[in-house]
Amino acid sequence: MIFSLTTLGTASALPTVDRFPSAHVLNVHERLFLIDCGEGCQMQLRRYGFSFLKINEIFISHVHGDHVFGIYGLLSTMSLLGRSADLFIYAPADFGPVLDSLIQQFGTQFKYKIVHIAVSGRAPEVIFETKSSEVLSFPLNHRTGCYGYLFREKMPRRNIHKYLIEKHSLTLAEIARLKDGEDIAREDGELLKSDVITYLPYKPRSFAYCSDTAPFKKLREYVEGVDLLYHESTFLQETEKVAALTMHSTAGQAAQLALEAGVGKLVIGHFSSRYKNSSLYENEAREIFPETYAAREGARFEIPLSGHGS
Amino acid sequence: MIFSLTTLGTASALPTVDRFPSAHVLNVHERLFLIDCGEGCQMQLRRYGFSFLKINEIFISHVHGDHVFGIYGLLSTMSLLGRSADLFIYAPADFGPVLDSLIQQFGTQFKYKIVHIAVSGRAPEVIFETKSSEVLSFPLNHRTGCYGYLFREKMPRRNIHKYLIEKHSLTLAEIARLKDGEDIAREDGELLKSDVITYLPYKPRSFAYCSDTAPFKKLREYVEGVDLLYHESTFLQETEKVAALTMHSTAGQAAQLALEAGVGKLVIGHFSSRYKNSSLYENEAREIFPETYAAREGARFEIPLSGHGS
Repeated sequence: MIFSLTTLGTASALPTVDRFPSAHVLNVHERLFLIDCGEGCQMQLRRYGFSFLKINEIFISHVHGDHVFGIYGLLSTMSLLGRSADLFIYAPADFGPVLDSLIQQFGTQFKYKIVHIAVSGRAPEVIFETKSSEVLSFPLNHRTGCYGYLFREKMPRRNIHKYLIEKHSLTLAEIARLKDGEDIAREDGELLKSDVITYLPYKPRSFAYCSDTAPFKKLREYVEGVDLLYHESTFLQETEKVAALTMHSTAGQAAQLALEAGVGKLVIGHFSSRYKNSSLYENEAREIFPETYAAREGARFEIPLSGHGS
Repeated sequence: MIFSLTTLGTASALPTVDRFPSAHVLNVHERLFLIDCGEGCQMQLRRYGFSFLKINEIFISHVHGDHVFGIYGLLSTMSLLGRSADLFIYAPADFGPVLDSLIQQFGTQFKYKIVHIAVSGRAPEVIFETKSSEVLSFPLNHRTGCYGYLFREKMPRRNIHKYLIEKHSLTLAEIARLKDGEDIAREDGELLKSDVITYLPYKPRSFAYCSDTAPFKKLREYVEGVDLLYHESTFLQETEKVAALTMHSTAGQAAQLALEAGVGKLVIGHFSSRYKNSSLYENEAREIFPETYAAREGARFEIPLSGHGS
C-alpha cells in the first residue's frame, strides 16, 4: 500500500534550466493526486512514468502562473489520449474563469467532464474522501487566496489476533463488533476488550502540502504530526525581508514549523532562481530540523507502512 | 550578420520525454523572432541561451494548444524580468480571446504593452519590416486558420568597387546614384553602369516556416527559392491517410514541396509521438530531397552569408 510523494518541479516564479515550476504527485494506494500544475507538468509526468489515466483529482493551491500554467497542456493531452472519465479539480474560486476560458478556447472537443470544486473556508475541512483516505483543505497566507492540502489515510478497521478467535470461541458477530472497536461484555461476565483482541493493521499515514505562504501561527495546528510535510522555501534567512514582502517563507521558517508541528520529515521546494544550489536551503533548514530534504525534479519521498499500531 | 534558425521543440500534439511542443527562434542580425510558442518554450529558450529581452516579435501560426500553450509562462516571465518594451504578437484573429483572457487573469500587473496584430489574408503580404529585413505571412491549409511566415533580408544597398572610384573620378553624388542601381550617362558620353561599378555585398537570405498544413498547390509559390524551409512532417508515407484526415503532411510531401520550390535546405519537425525515431522521417524525405534535416531540440541551422551577388 504505497504512499509516496514525487516532486516534479522545484522552481518558484521563474523556472530555470534545471527547475520546472511547481507540480507534485502523491501516490496513495496507486491513486495519483496531482498537486499544483506548473508549466511542463505533463512532460514531467511522462518523464517520471506516471500514467495520466490514474489522475482523477487535481489540487491547485492558488491561481498564480507558476502553479497552474501546465493545466492547459495537461487537460488537452488527456483529451487527445481519449479520456472519458470525469476529472475533478479542487482549486480556489478564481480558478473558475481560467478553466472556463481554457474549455471555451481549447476544450470544445473534450469528451470528458471537468468539475471544478471551489475550495474556500477558514479552517481545515474534508473536501474529498475515498473508503481508505481523505483530503482536507486549509487556508494559507499568501498574496492571493491560497490553500494547503492534507492527505491522510483513514483509520483502518482493526484486525483480529487470529489465535484469540479459538481461545475465546468468538462468533462472527462478536468479531465484527470487536473489529469496530467495541468492547463486549458476555453474559457469563467475561469482558472481551477490543484493544486486546484486535490491533491496528497499520498506522494511518499523512502528508501536508503548504505552498505558497508566509508563516502564521495557526499553520502549526493544521499540519501537526504529519508524517511528511512539503513546505515552500522560496528564500533563505539572508533574504527574509523579500520573503516577508512577497508573503513567502525561508528555509529556516519552514524548518521551524516542521519542528513545532512535530512532523516526521520535511521536504522543501519552490526555490528562488537567485539560488542555484538547493543545498543552501537544505543546510539552513537542517540546523533547525535535521530531517529536511531539498526537493529535486523527480525525487520520490516514500512513507513506508509502519508496524502495528496498538 | 547572423541568420539562423534554432528548433526548440519538435513534437506535434503530444509532447514526449524527448520532444517539446513547437517553438522556434530565428535570429536575424541578433534580433530574435520567436515562431510558435508551445508549452515549455520559456524553459527551452533558457536552456539554449536566448535572452528574453531580445524578443520583441512573436509569430503564431495557429491557435492549437501545441503551438501556443507556452505563451502564458513566457509573457509572465517577461513581466517578472522587468520588461517594459512593447511586445508584438502576430497571430490569427482567434488568438485575440486567448490573449485577452491571459492578460485579464494573469497580466493585470504587466508593465509592458502587448500588441496583437491579427494575421489574415489569402495571399502573401508583408506584415513586419525593419531597415534590413521583412516578414510576410501566407495562408496554410489546416483545420483552423493557420499561417506560414516568410522571413527575408531586404535587398541590401549595392557596394562600390573601390578601385573604380579613382579610375572614373566618381563624385559623391554619382556614387550614391550608382549604389542605388542607377546607370549614369556622363556629358562626355561615358556610360557608368551600376552593375559594373557596384556589386551586392551579399545575397539576401530567406527562411520560410510552414506548420501545420496539408499540401496544396499554391504553397510552392509562397516558399519558392528560400534558402531554408521549415516544414511540418507529422506523418510518414505509411500513415498518409491519417495525415490527410488531420490536414497534416508526411515527410515525403514536405520533401516534394522543397524539391519543387527549389529551396536550399529543408528542416522537418512536428513529429507524431507514434514515431520515436526521427531518422525515419529524415530517410523518407531524403529519398526525394537529399538536403533534408530532421529537427531536434536545440538544433541550429545557420544560413551563412553567400559571396557577392552580381
